[in-house]
Amino acid sequence: MAGSSIGQLFKVTTFGESHGAAIGCIVDGIPPNLEICEADLQHDLDRRRPGQSRYTTMRQEKDQVKILSGVFEGKTTGSSIGLMIENTDQRSKDYSEIKDLFRPGHADYTYHQKFGHRDYRGGGRSSARETAMRVAAGAIAKKYLNEQFGIVIRGYLSQLGDIKADSIDLDEVENNPFFFPDLSKITQLEDYMKALIKEGNSVGAKVTVVASSVPVGLGEPVFDRLDAELAHSLMSINAVKGVEIGDGFAAVSQKGTEHRDEMTPGGFLSNHAGGILGGISTGQDIIAHIALKPTSSLTIPGRTITTNGEATTMITKGRHDPCVGIRAVPIAEAQMAITLLDHLLRHRAQNLHVTTNTPFIK
Amino acid sequence: MAGSSIGQLFKVTTFGESHGAAIGCIVDGIPPNLEICEADLQHDLDRRRPGQSRYTTMRQEKDQVKILSGVFEGKTTGSSIGLMIENTDQRSKDYSEIKDLFRPGHADYTYHQKFGHRDYRGGGRSSARETAMRVAAGAIAKKYLNEQFGIVIRGYLSQLGDIKADSIDLDEVENNPFFFPDLSKITQLEDYMKALIKEGNSVGAKVTVVASSVPVGLGEPVFDRLDAELAHSLMSINAVKGVEIGDGFAAVSQKGTEHRDEMTPGGFLSNHAGGILGGISTGQDIIAHIALKPTSSLTIPGRTITTNGEATTMITKGRHDPCVGIRAVPIAEAQMAITLLDHLLRHRAQNLHVTTNTPFIK
Amino acid sequence: MAGSSIGQLFKVTTFGESHGAAIGCIVDGIPPNLEICEADLQHDLDRRRPGQSRYTTMRQEKDQVKILSGVFEGKTTGSSIGLMIENTDQRSKDYSEIKDLFRPGHADYTYHQKFGHRDYRGGGRSSARETAMRVAAGAIAKKYLNEQFGIVIRGYLSQLGDIKADSIDLDEVENNPFFFPDLSKITQLEDYMKALIKEGNSVGAKVTVVASSVPVGLGEPVFDRLDAELAHSLMSINAVKGVEIGDGFAAVSQKGTEHRDEMTPGGFLSNHAGGILGGISTGQDIIAHIALKPTSSLTIPGRTITTNGEATTMITKGRHDPCVGIRAVPIAEAQMAITLLDHLLRHRAQNLHVTTNTPFIK
Amino acid sequence: MAGSSIGQLFKVTTFGESHGAAIGCIVDGIPPNLEICEADLQHDLDRRRPGQSRYTTMRQEKDQVKILSGVFEGKTTGSSIGLMIENTDQRSKDYSEIKDLFRPGHADYTYHQKFGHRDYRGGGRSSARETAMRVAAGAIAKKYLNEQFGIVIRGYLSQLGDIKADSIDLDEVENNPFFFPDLSKITQLEDYMKALIKEGNSVGAKVTVVASSVPVGLGEPVFDRLDAELAHSLMSINAVKGVEIGDGFAAVSQKGTEHRDEMTPGGFLSNHAGGILGGISTGQDIIAHIALKPTSSLTIPGRTITTNGEATTMITKGRHDPCVGIRAVPIAEAQMAITLLDHLLRHRAQNLHVTTNTPFIK
Repeated sequence: MAGSSIGQLFKVTTFGESHGAAIGCIVDGIPPNLEICEADLQHDLDRRRPGQSRYTTMRQEKDQVKILSGVFEGKTTGSSIGLMIENTDQRSKDYSEIKDLFRPGHADYTYHQKFGHRDYRGGGRSSARETAMRVAAGAIAKKYLNEQFGIVIRGYLSQLGDIKADSIDLDEVENNPFFFPDLSKITQLEDYMKALIKEGNSVGAKVTVVASSVPVGLGEPVFDRLDAELAHSLMSINAVKGVEIGDGFAAVSQKGTEHRDEMTPGGFLSNHAGGILGGISTGQDIIAHIALKPTSSLTIPGRTITTNGEATTMITKGRHDPCVGIRAVPIAEAQMAITLLDHLLRHRAQNLHVTTNTPFIK
Repeated sequence: MAGSSIGQLFKVTTFGESHGAAIGCIVDGIPPNLEICEADLQHDLDRRRPGQSRYTTMRQEKDQVKILSGVFEGKTTGSSIGLMIENTDQRSKDYSEIKDLFRPGHADYTYHQKFGHRDYRGGGRSSARETAMRVAAGAIAKKYLNEQFGIVIRGYLSQLGDIKADSIDLDEVENNPFFFPDLSKITQLEDYMKALIKEGNSVGAKVTVVASSVPVGLGEPVFDRLDAELAHSLMSINAVKGVEIGDGFAAVSQKGTEHRDEMTPGGFLSNHAGGILGGISTGQDIIAHIALKPTSSLTIPGRTITTNGEATTMITKGRHDPCVGIRAVPIAEAQMAITLLDHLLRHRAQNLHVTTNTPFIK
Repeated sequence: MAGSSIGQLFKVTTFGESHGAAIGCIVDGIPPNLEICEADLQHDLDRRRPGQSRYTTMRQEKDQVKILSGVFEGKTTGSSIGLMIENTDQRSKDYSEIKDLFRPGHADYTYHQKFGHRDYRGGGRSSARETAMRVAAGAIAKKYLNEQFGIVIRGYLSQLGDIKADSIDLDEVENNPFFFPDLSKITQLEDYMKALIKEGNSVGAKVTVVASSVPVGLGEPVFDRLDAELAHSLMSINAVKGVEIGDGFAAVSQKGTEHRDEMTPGGFLSNHAGGILGGISTGQDIIAHIALKPTSSLTIPGRTITTNGEATTMITKGRHDPCVGIRAVPIAEAQMAITLLDHLLRHRAQNLHVTTNTPFIK
Repeated sequence: MAGSSIGQLFKVTTFGESHGAAIGCIVDGIPPNLEICEADLQHDLDRRRPGQSRYTTMRQEKDQVKILSGVFEGKTTGSSIGLMIENTDQRSKDYSEIKDLFRPGHADYTYHQKFGHRDYRGGGRSSARETAMRVAAGAIAKKYLNEQFGIVIRGYLSQLGDIKADSIDLDEVENNPFFFPDLSKITQLEDYMKALIKEGNSVGAKVTVVASSVPVGLGEPVFDRLDAELAHSLMSINAVKGVEIGDGFAAVSQKGTEHRDEMTPGGFLSNHAGGILGGISTGQDIIAHIALKPTSSLTIPGRTITTNGEATTMITKGRHDPCVGIRAVPIAEAQMAITLLDHLLRHRAQNLHVTTNTPFIK
């Protein structure tokens, strides 16, 4: 109930199901006079778009976004922006077999139990198709953050199965279909994915998002901490099972002398905190990691029950991502942008100046 | 700004600094006719209270809570409940040395940069002292959840440094000063902690919280998912750097066949999901893990800067927890209770019935 | 900023400008399993639609609403409903003359000063065109309220200029183009309006909305009172300058013995309170009145300034309602429905039963 | 449920019953570095305080407010401010007779029906005693508005029964026990009130609040209009039955040529709009009027029913205001201040500059 919005001052509200007429969102709270056009949104939508490589779902969606309001003579008016993408490749028949059973690992069972009926076509509202609107809204936030404050948000796939990036070269991320920052492992990834697809299985992944040039001071004490709201924002992405800020779970085994980020007049000497102390940004890079589970849409049979409670087995036909983590990279960037902009507006409301980390001390 | 509230229908708003006159909160949205008294809140407050063992801070606070409103003739009225704890052991002089410098790893620097001045006494608003009110509010939520739905929420320390619980015996948790569920490792923990205190260092920890007998169907689609709001709630606890639901980051290396929880007429065959699918509770145990960083309050000198930007070194005198993760156990339980109750109320608003997992299919 | 939403549990968020591509809204929080289709929304949209009589604007809009999501197999799914109406009769050239001046009595000046630029075409976001979406969303709320609780919401024009309804016959309201409940005055209204249109002037109006069969107990103590939120909801309608509950401003001259609604075992003896005591519904009819100002779109010249601050005079060409109060009737009903449903859901969240006023005492 | 908060960025949450241990509130969102002390709050509390003249309730409350947090070294820290007033003159026995019946015109019946039980002592949560906290919170908002922007908020009693202020001299308002701006009618008011008290009856009143030096541009389009949120804020005051902005209900009989506020390079030529156009402040005085009903606490017997549904009659003993409108003046000022500050913060979040009305055009 009323769960389709995120943000307080920069607020995004979405609608739409996987196989409905259209998906869309309302972006409310963007300040006026930002130059924006559909092409500004399309770039990230294309990065998220299915059918881009053999390693993601073959579903073909053009994901052509329309701006329906809130932009006049090329600039935001300060009023709500209506965005819409029509669903063009719906193929409802692909899904008719799953109408009367619950796919294990999917939201079929919980939606059915909660709401009494469900849109079974491709997962309906629980489908990751809805995240296209987050990417569109995030592109607006990204543009504002970058133009007004020089903030840059970049994500990458840091791990797929057991294959970890050993070196991080952000310039490589857009040059391969995995958003992977370690060129030396692309062949290994390709081989792994081909075998996985052949097997009909899927695999988990870890995605990292880094925001740089973030001003000091974003985030509010106690409950509206920047890290807490980032955790909310990132965990709301489909398939995410874990969120870390900075060293995250590695901190469990660390000692205080190892973790604390010492300071000198030249700046912090390390960034174990991931750019957030006491819930407030330090001016260093904000670093977040998320864990994405392997999708449950497999061609290997799984045990489940029908809506009448009888035992059965099922396989997933349709077209699915063998690793949903790959296309999550632009989504995670979008969620980071939405939450950062929301906090920037809250910070500015207090009449506090917005400073980057140079000079170190105000 | 306005960051001191959590929850939509069950809403907790806190105030208070570590060394101010009092800390308190307003609990708004608890349904009427719940029997509640101060003793009901005191139990969990005593579990969190400092000075309980040699392994936590020696600060002595009685943490005696007063109910100021919202309860009449022993029952909640449906109006807001005012709670207050007076600070009795303030010892402000302990903290006078840190007035003009930023303790590394603490919120001193970020609060100073954000707000222009700060209450330097014991961390002021950024101190974990504020979490006492969460525990008090959480105790009300716990009682309602238990009496109305039979829900039980239990937390434990699952790891401290490199010492992990190998077996989980929840009955042992309250029998040792670590909230540790593996009796066989208590001596190891004691030895480790004694050495750590002697060294003047600190260590990280992992805390696990489990909610059982949770009805199917809690959580809302898209942004207000139960897992997303749990992530917000748990990440808002001081020192938390990571949150996992179910298998969490282990899912990165898993295959779909391994992770998906298959179903039979008798129920789910596993719980890798941690009791949440598509953001909605499955009726299984809800399992969350959090990573707590080692406190930065050490007697081993660290490099830092003064508020004028000059290099210096500092050690922390005062009284501090060598492992803040230990006392985080009742806090994590409280946050889980607050978020679950909030979602239960939202679920009920839709006129959806509230069912536990038997029978499996409605 | 982020001002386009109303409601907490039943939440409506709108977008769209008078002469943009489309207007739309997202209705979030409607419980699942309500049967709804586009025709259910169209009835009230047609009542609000321009061009229905010679006494309202001649602008021709079909106001054909599309349901884009949230309804599956004819029933609400519990997820957000996307609604859209394409603007078909935009005639932007009508408005080109007012680009560089501020129409007196309109929002041109305030939007320009606030946002730095404005969509000058027909008032852009400040146009009452946006209220079509409120009517569409309100129709969903009305249907739920009626089917689940038997609540009926009816509005009428109670006064136009100095012409007041002496008798209230609700059955007459839909039989004349004024939504007027006093048949004996229709000719007087027609004559008045013809003269007004000829004069190029406009006039104010009073609209009354009555909700009957409302359960006892809706509304929350202190700030979220039902009357306070109704005041917000109704005052948010374009051109509204006053809101009354029950006797409203007449209470200023009343004595306590006159105003208090005495009670007997058979029920209340009067309803000066308008169905709300202490912010909570009594089970009697909820009665609200609103004052609508005369529109400032006149063909009689008015003094104003250009955006460069120079003196000028202007007249309004285009097509305008000589009395905006007339078409406000379905809008006021919609706002009443939205706010009542929001409160019903909040009430139900507390597990409080929902009773109508028979029997009087539970 | 969760109805005890008002405001988005400047948020006030209250607790407390008429005859409980204490009343209090949390003020969240006040920017840092505002100099504030208890004396700053006490002035308005004393204006609202009962027992100030023979024309208001004789209940004796010192209403001594304590600041428990959020202020350090005399300045706000940016964190939440805890405020508390202990109830000293409770006299619970005065109210024991009304335990088993519903006072007509009070919230007894609605609270009982909604919540199943109620704090019958002096109205419990529904008592206007709670408004003391609004006045305390409003005093903080007033100080910030005045120091940062020069905004001045002043209220007065514009009508009591049929006695209207013919002339408005704001300098007289604090010189008489009625907050009345027309010195020539004080004797008439005194005579009227003495007769009313003797009769055991009560009377309604109208209160006017004016905010001057308000910047242009406060308020957000569509639902979060400044006038809509003022209506919410003012209607939330106990006993209020109507709210007007500017000409209010007088606009019903006005023509467009009469109502529209024409503009010249020197400024607006009138202020029928009450300083708000399209929901956004014009830079002129913001003018609001509220209607307060006569209290139902009378010594003239009234018919009612017992909680068992039996007919009875009752009179109110205790100590009551014969005209609750008088003491509502500082409360209305407080609500105006709270809502204006909330909107100022939202406006500033958009990075829009804050300008007063000189020069007229930016």
